[in-house]
Order: sequence, then C-alpha cells, then structure tokens
Amino acid sequence: MSEHSGSELPARILNDLQTSFRPVNKGAEKWLYRPIPCLNHGFVYLVDYMGNDEAIAQAARVSYGTGTKKAQTDAGLIRHLLRHAHTTPFEMVEFKFHCKMPIFVARQWIRHRMASVNEYSGRYSEMLDEFYLPEPEVIRKQSVSNRQGRGDDLTVEQQREVISILKAEFASQYDAYQKLLRMDVAKELARIGLSVANYTQWYWKIDLHNLMHFLRLRLDSHAQHEIQVYGQAMARIIESAVPIAYQAFSDYRLNAMSLTALDISFIQSGGWPRSEEQVLKELAARFSNKRERDECLQKLKQLSLVRRE
Amino acid sequence: MSEHSGSELPARILNDLQTSFRPVNKGAEKWLYRPIPCLNHGFVYLVDYMGNDEAIAQAARVSYGTGTKKAQTDAGLIRHLLRHAHTTPFEMVEFKFHCKMPIFVARQWIRHRMASVNEYSGRYSEMLDEFYLPEPEVIRKQSVSNRQGRGDDLTVEQQREVISILKAEFASQYDAYQKLLRMDVAKELARIGLSVANYTQWYWKIDLHNLMHFLRLRLDSHAQHEIQVYGQAMARIIESAVPIAYQAFSDYRLNAMSLTALDISFIQSGGWPRSEEQVLKELAARFSNKRERDECLQKLKQLSLVRRE
Amino acid sequence: MSEHSGSELPARILNDLQTSFRPVNKGAEKWLYRPIPCLNHGFVYLVDYMGNDEAIAQAARVSYGTGTKKAQTDAGLIRHLLRHAHTTPFEMVEFKFHCKMPIFVARQWIRHRMASVNEYSGRYSEMLDEFYLPEPEVIRKQSVSNRQGRGDDLTVEQQREVISILKAEFASQYDAYQKLLRMDVAKELARIGLSVANYTQWYWKIDLHNLMHFLRLRLDSHAQHEIQVYGQAMARIIESAVPIAYQAFSDYRLNAMSLTALDISFIQSGGWPRSEEQVLKELAARFSNKRERDECLQKLKQLSLVRRE
Amino acid sequence: MSEHSGSELPARILNDLQTSFRPVNKGAEKWLYRPIPCLNHGFVYLVDYMGNDEAIAQAARVSYGTGTKKAQTDAGLIRHLLRHAHTTPFEMVEFKFHCKMPIFVARQWIRHRMASVNEYSGRYSEMLDEFYLPEPEVIRKQSVSNRQGRGDDLTVEQQREVISILKAEFASQYDAYQKLLRMDVAKELARIGLSVANYTQWYWKIDLHNLMHFLRLRLDSHAQHEIQVYGQAMARIIESAVPIAYQAFSDYRLNAMSLTALDISFIQSGGWPRSEEQVLKELAARFSNKRERDECLQKLKQLSLVRRE
Repeated sequence: MSEHSGSELPARILNDLQTSFRPVNKGAEKWLYRPIPCLNHGFVYLVDYMGNDEAIAQAARVSYGTGTKKAQTDAGLIRHLLRHAHTTPFEMVEFKFHCKMPIFVARQWIRHRMASVNEYSGRYSEMLDEFYLPEPEVIRKQSVSNRQGRGDDLTVEQQREVISILKAEFASQYDAYQKLLRMDVAKELARIGLSVANYTQWYWKIDLHNLMHFLRLRLDSHAQHEIQVYGQAMARIIESAVPIAYQAFSDYRLNAMSLTALDISFIQSGGWPRSEEQVLKELAARFSNKRERDECLQKLKQLSLVRRE
Repeated sequence: MSEHSGSELPARILNDLQTSFRPVNKGAEKWLYRPIPCLNHGFVYLVDYMGNDEAIAQAARVSYGTGTKKAQTDAGLIRHLLRHAHTTPFEMVEFKFHCKMPIFVARQWIRHRMASVNEYSGRYSEMLDEFYLPEPEVIRKQSVSNRQGRGDDLTVEQQREVISILKAEFASQYDAYQKLLRMDVAKELARIGLSVANYTQWYWKIDLHNLMHFLRLRLDSHAQHEIQVYGQAMARIIESAVPIAYQAFSDYRLNAMSLTALDISFIQSGGWPRSEEQVLKELAARFSNKRERDECLQKLKQLSLVRRE
Repeated sequence: MSEHSGSELPARILNDLQTSFRPVNKGAEKWLYRPIPCLNHGFVYLVDYMGNDEAIAQAARVSYGTGTKKAQTDAGLIRHLLRHAHTTPFEMVEFKFHCKMPIFVARQWIRHRMASVNEYSGRYSEMLDEFYLPEPEVIRKQSVSNRQGRGDDLTVEQQREVISILKAEFASQYDAYQKLLRMDVAKELARIGLSVANYTQWYWKIDLHNLMHFLRLRLDSHAQHEIQVYGQAMARIIESAVPIAYQAFSDYRLNAMSLTALDISFIQSGGWPRSEEQVLKELAARFSNKRERDECLQKLKQLSLVRRE
Repeated sequence: MSEHSGSELPARILNDLQTSFRPVNKGAEKWLYRPIPCLNHGFVYLVDYMGNDEAIAQAARVSYGTGTKKAQTDAGLIRHLLRHAHTTPFEMVEFKFHCKMPIFVARQWIRHRMASVNEYSGRYSEMLDEFYLPEPEVIRKQSVSNRQGRGDDLTVEQQREVISILKAEFASQYDAYQKLLRMDVAKELARIGLSVANYTQWYWKIDLHNLMHFLRLRLDSHAQHEIQVYGQAMARIIESAVPIAYQAFSDYRLNAMSLTALDISFIQSGGWPRSEEQVLKELAARFSNKRERDECLQKLKQLSLVRRE
C-alpha cells in the first residue's frame, strides 16, 4: 500500500480499546484498520462491522419461536440456511470497508446496488497522481474463446512496451490536469481528461448476503483480474469474520456445480464413465446449442464421468 | 372466481384496441385482463406489461456495441445469459398484476421486496365477507419430516370437521366486525378481529428477473400450498409472455440440481452406479451432517447413480 | 412488557462486557437489550448497532479527501448533509431491533422494503395466546374528515362493549386454533382463523437513512395509532444513539414545512399578516383544489401570517 | 447527435405500428425512438414505457376498494398523493431509455440504485473515438462559494486553451489505445488509459417515483452541468408522458421550499416584511450556524418577506 493511505489510519481508533455490550467478533476485530494492499496503489480494510456467525443463527431462530427446540448447532443451521436459499438471516451481518481502487474497477464494483457508498469526489478534491500500472505478468492478449477476457501471453518486450505506453499516457494526463488546475479551471471539469486507471476511493457498507453475491461474481475466473484482487482481499477478511458461513459459501456456492435439466437427463441415461467419443456423440444428439454442449462436457469431466483413454 | 372480481374488469380496456409504436408481446396480450381463479375467492390477472424475449436480448446486446456481431440467435443469447447469471437484461421486462389472496398468503408474498405494491386498505374500506376455506383434499396433518409443512392425510370426517370449525369461526368474526362497524368504531380498529384467512388484494408490479426469483421459491414443493397456487397462475402467464426465457428458467433453475463441493468430490470417486448400501456407507464417512447426507443420496438417486437392487 | 418476552433476553449478553476496537456508541449501548413495552404485549429493543454520529461525518468526509480541510464540526456537517438531501452517509449507521407487535401493525411496517427481516413463523411454531386489546381511550369513532383514521370519542359504555366483543372473539379464535392443533392439523393451516390482532415478532435491521424515512411516516399523526407507538419507541432509542442526526431530523424533517410553488407565490403577494377573510378570498382565486386551499390556509396559520381577529 | 447513434435506430420499430390492449400513452408514444441530442456526442431516447397518469390513479384506487367512491378526479388524486408522500402508485409507471454519455456523467448517474442498467462494455467491444469536449461557455473557474461547482468566467483565450489541451489529450489517449489494440492487448486492459470524458452508453429502466427523485437531484443547480443536460432531456419526455404527475412534481418538489423548524419559528415572530438589517440581526441571534442563517435569509427574500430599501 502506498504511504499515502497509511497516513490516513486514525491513530485514535487503533489505540483505543473500548468496552461494549455488543457481541464481539474476534475474527473481524483483528482485521479492523489493517489494510490489505491491492494492485499498485490500492487497498481494502475493514472500518466497522456488526454481527458474527452466531448472529445469523440467532436471527434464523426467531422463526422457530417457542414451538421448536434448539435442535441444531449453529453450524448445522447456518449450512442448512445457505443450502436452501434462506438468505435473509445472512443480511443481519454488516461490514464496512474503506477501499481504494482504479476507476475502472470502481465502475464494475458499483453495479452491485444493494450496498451503501460514499466516494471521493473529483468535484471537491484534487485527484491524486496515482494510476494503475499492471504488473507485467497480467498484461496479456485478447482472449479468443472469451470475448471479454485475456488469453495468451505477450512477449516480455511487448509487456514492457505496454507499460511504457501507459506510463507516458498517465504522465501526460496528469500534466494536463495540473495545467488546467493552475488556470483555475473548475475541478469538476479539469478532471475529465484523467483516465479510468486513476485511483478513487470509497467507504462501502454491505450485508453478508449481498457480499457473498458480490464475491461469487467477482472471485469468478471470468471477472476482470483487477477486481478479483479486491474480491480476494475481502474474502480473506470474511473468512476470518464468519468462518462457518464462509465455509458453507465455499461448499455450496463457490465450489458447487449446477446441473441443468438437460445435464441431469443425460447423466440419468447411465453407463458411466463413458469415453469422450461416446459422450461427444450423445451430446450432439441431445444439445442443439454448442455452448451448452461444451459446458456439459466440462462438467462431466470435472465429475470424472468421462473416461481418460 | 367470485362474481365480485369479474365486475371489476373495466370494460373500456377490454373493448379498446389501440395502436402503439412499442414492441407488442402477443403472448402477454392474450392474458391481459383475463383473470385466473386462485383458491375460493382469489385471482391473478395481468394488468399491463413492458417487453418480451426480444427486449432481453436487445438490452444484453448494448454491452457488445459495435465491436461484436450478432453472432447468436436471441434464444442462444437468452439461455447463455441465464445460465451464467447475467441477470440484468431480465430486469428490462416488467409485469403488472392485479391479485386477490388471503392475508396469510399476502404476508408471505410481500417478503419479496424488489416489487411495487398498492394494496386494498382496511383503514379506508370495508373488508369483504370473503375468507379462504380450503378444499378438503389439502387439509392435512402436520408433517413430521418437514416442520413447516403438511404431511399425512386426515380422514374425511376430520376434514369435514376442520371446515366446519373454520366456517363457524369466520362467520363469528365477520359478525363481530359488522357489529363494530354499526357502532361506528373506526374501520382501522374494527378490522383487527378479522383473521388472516380474510381476502385482500393488490396491484403488484415486478420485473422478470425478480419474478423468476419469486417463482423459484414459491413454486417449490416446500412453499405453502396456497401461495404455490398463485405462483402457478403467474407461471402460466409468464410462460406465454416470454417463452424463451421461461424455458431457460425451467431448464436452469426450476429443474436444475446444485451439486455441493462435497457431492462433487463423492461423484469423482467413481464406480457408478453403486448399490444403496455402498453409497450409505461412503456417505457416513464423508458427511458429518445427516441432512446433507440425505440430500446427497437423494440427488444420486435422481441421477440414477444408485443401483436399484 | 409481558413476562414472556423478558425471559427471552439472553443473560449471557447482558452480563458479558467485551472489548472491541470498534467505535462505541454510548447512547446506543445503554439501550442494548432493554425492551420498551409497546401496546399490551409488544416491545421493541435494540439487539445490535453499528456506528454513531461521528461515523456519518467520517463517511461524508471521504468525498473531500485531501483537497479540503476539516473546515466544519461534525454537527455542522451532519446538519448540512441532511438539509441538502445528501443522505448516503446516514446509510453508514445500522440498527438491529427485536420487535413484537400485532400482525396488522407488522403488515404496515413491512411495507418499508429497505430493511432486513426475520419473522416468527406460524408454519414452524405455535402462535401464542396473545392478542392486541386496545386501551379504552384509543377506541374511537370513524373519522369523518380523514377517511383512514379515528375521530370522535365513543361513550365509556361503548368502549367497554368493543373490548368485550374483541375479547370474546379472540378467545373463540384461540379455542378453535387449539382444537385444530389437537386434531394434528398442520400448523400452517390451523392458524388461518387467527386474527391480525394476534402478536408476531421479528428481528428488523435497517440503516439510519431508511429508519428516518420510516419514522417520518410512522410518527405522523395520520399513521395508525398502534404503529406510532412503535415509532415513538424507536425514536427514543435513535435520539439517544445519534443525537446530532436526530436533532437535524427533527428540525428539517419532522418539524419542517413544505411550501408548494402555489403557496410561495401567494406569500410573495405580501401584506402579511392578513385577516382570515382576506386569505380565504384570495385562496379561492388562486387554488382550484379545495384540499390544497385548506392545506395552504393551515400553513399560513401555523406561520402566524393570518391575523387573529 | 453523431451519425453513429442515428444509425442504431431499428427501422422495424419506427415503421411498425402495432395494436395492443394495453393502455397507450400518447405523450410517450411521440417520444419513442426520437433521440434528444445531449452534449457533443450523447443522446437520450425513450425505448419503451408502461403506464400513464391514469395508471397512477388506478393503482392508488386499489386502496379504496369498494368502500369509497371515485370522489376525486385523477388530477386531484395524483396531486394529493404526491403532496402527501404516498409515492408507491408512482412506481407503477416505467420508462426505458437508451442513453449515451461521457463516463464521468455515467459515474454520477449510476449512483441512483433503484434502476436497471445494461451498459456498453469496454471488455467486449472497442471504445469509440468520441470524447466530451465542452462548449466554451461552460468552461469556467472553480467556484469559491460552492466547493464542488463552477464560478466565474474564464477569458475567451483561456477557454480556447482549455479546449486545445483537452483535444490534444484525447487524441493522444486514443492513439495509445489503438496502438495497444494493434499489439493485441486484451481490450479490458487496453482501455484503462482512456479518460472519463470518453463516451459510454446504456439502457436504463426506472419507475416514475425513482425517476422524479433522480430529476430532483440532477436538475438542481448544484448538480454538474453535464448531467443536468441529461436530466433536462428526460424531463421533457416525462412532462409529455405524465403531464399531471409532472405538474405536481414541479409544484411540490422542483419549485417547493422547505422551511425548517428554525425558519418557521422566526417567521412566527411576525412583523413582515422586515428590513434586511433587522433580519440579519435576528438571524444572528437565532442561528448559530452561518450556513443555516444564509439559507434562511435566502428563503425570506424569495418569499418577499425582506423589505427592499
């Protein structure tokens, strides 16, 4: 993390241990005001939180009232809730983060509407001379198979050239910005030539249910690499704060597999494992859509239902 | 449907065919102002709509702009979107319903927050003498396995007795209500003795994405029977209005199966189909939680991976 | 509060003072797990919270970043934010309540969609023999002027009769319910004869911005008396927890007055104060709608711009 | 508007007048697929709609059911609803727009969460060589009084220089972008050097209640000029589509004035009009906060309650 952001941490809070009647979350406490660096100038840290695994179970048990006993452990209950899409108790846990990220990452992030945001404003405040410059190894070619992603490697020379093009461009942009500010052009106008690689920051508050939805989409390998980095940082914090819920999320969402009605019908036809050749023939007969066919094959392979010759 | 609700249909609209530059949805048009009776006094009908299958594809294609060709058919695109949880284009289609249902059904329904509602008000208007009286065949015992549902049959005599108890109770409630109104007690207070079987009604507007979420939960066999009836009514309308999206919803949501990380790992261990005995032994070793074990067995059976002896 | 709800308070939490690095809210701490009785069997208490007045200012200051100094006190900033509808920083504060209320109150309450709820379920659990019985003094006639409210007093005898009618009705309902349960009818069905005066309960979590919106509507004199009682209970807690924000809310929302374009134009015509006669004549010329006219007169009176003869 | 956007209008729809049983909105029909140019390359046009003024009244009347007569005209009812914050019936009307705007405008716009969006994706598609270049007259100095806005004029020479700096910067950015694309760098990475003045576009669907909220904030003189332009374009369409609701919105929101508790108390003290000197003295005694004092003075002047010497 840049020296800049470190200096923003209010010493008062780090030094000041207070007493409260609220439930305390040991796993979250240890992440309070401890930034995780992300990309070259960004970070994520936890500013405040409410609740823990127990709070999820507690809210769910309101439904049961006096007519049912506490028949299950918290873990059994939480896992049951998530497996069966009873997601409202997960809304009872809240996290508030301070995040700093390139504008193009912020633009993907903000599409998650069920959250609260207060963002740095380029109308009020000067934008800083901080731009996202990718590490060489993540500078790659346009993917052929995935039209929105990255594919093959570029050469080291090409990566170097990309960096030098971007660096020059950022320097020129920030120069122009400074020139406009010196002319006393309104900040809201002066900043329009700055690129989406420029950094912004915000406070972001979200409940656990919606955060898990965010993580499911943004930890996915199809998400842009740069936002995955932020997803991973938050996942570390969440895993520490609500370990039971996170394990359930991992088992039932992140690492789950959805079989479509067509997949199910094919598996029901039996004879597993089959050879890839057999499978391909059958798929051609069953699926009119090529993509669905490919995805089904992929799942069967992952389930070890396709024989390796 | 009761005669009451029929008289509410504004003749003006039924008679008045108008011209518009908007895309027209033939499948939705035929359901406009045609109520589907639900339970003994309720109904659902379509009041207005916006969009069709094409509108989903059209919104999705904005993302592609000029850089990509219309490489896929609408159907291929819509199915791809739903399979990969790109749900925002489904928000571009809207449905507005007029629904009449018992208050206890309305209480479950209203939990879906991403919708717009205008409800009949017992503060302004007199509640009608219309109560939900179940058909004998749906009056059943408390389920033992499912603590929130119905289980075994009652005898015909018992069913008859239940109906007679409820009938007497509703008559007594409505008498008391009328007595209070005759004393000029404020309506908002007089109605507090009326039960949750009394009917209410509302206008309900929701986009297709959120409606599919509603249907997934309310068509489920664990939903209370009475709200399933409303879900089925709306499903008929939706299937007619957006046949491609509905087919995708059916293939990828309603009739899909989610394999957890634990399920996947078990299937990967191979040797399918196996005997139930073998499976049970293996499940006991792999799953500490009884419910997860039962659910896994259930899925394996549905996939025909458990040998029938 | 009923003895029932007291026994629900988890002793563990009341006894267990813990340490945390989080900001602590002294005004909220003192309300944690201290129920405020509402109506004859209901209550509201604070289960957990996140944030305080300082957290509102802190989130707002993210916008200003390094380019502006902390030119204002927290109070000045918070008041400015609310006066100018910069409401997002108020979303950064969260409150979680446990509430018990009659079903008809819950039905009005749930219309506020921007909140999280876990409710007692009559499908899982037995409904209790607890019904709302109004205090005699709030049993009043239907209002003539306000079609959704209460108006003149009933006689003491009439009030007594209303109570006795409701009491008998509740007893009969609960008897029928018990009879059905003894027949082993499924709980979800047995409960349909219970009235909306029966009590339910829930966990309810909401951010401060949305809570202020709730309070504005539900503290209003046109809200049904019974939900006002719950609004007042929460207002006490909020006033203690975020005194600066609450004062601003009181000054700029609760006790503010909105002048319409038509009101403004009339006031601009000068000559204040005027006699009521003059005002009425002018209003008749300026406002075609009787209600708008009455509301304008009301505002002018409140502003002491109408001369008392 | 650029020739590019014009060619996007699907001829099919413009030529194809269809029949429907739905209520038709004459005022909206005439705006369908008729773009309003905004800024140098942007536009707004209406893609689809649902509902009209009558639909607002119709939804509100569900509350009244059979117990009340249609006592009011639609206009009286709609105005009453908006005056008293009964906003849910306004949610029953939907508008879907296709909009093209600079990224910095899109970033302000997207903060309105209660809407549905499908945006052009720079991951899939090539960003176009279209950047926002302000008209000279809107290029102004940083405001002194309003820290987020524009203030005094720059000279014509300065304005010319600003434009030339921005033009050069945009050309350089787009060159670099093209160079990276020619190297086959992934599109999602190549675009990070493009500025927030680059144009994006989206489908945006929103209900009338939330659109009025958007317009209230974005038509305000404190909103950035460039987003006001889009607000004004949509306001023209809405005024034509729901003239009664728009007039109420104009009277009760856009051109209304909110008096705080402190303002009210001051006005109640009488003696109007007063001299500015008197008012200033009294304000100093009553308001501790300078901003609140200034705002009160401003309101009193607007109400012609301050005597012009």
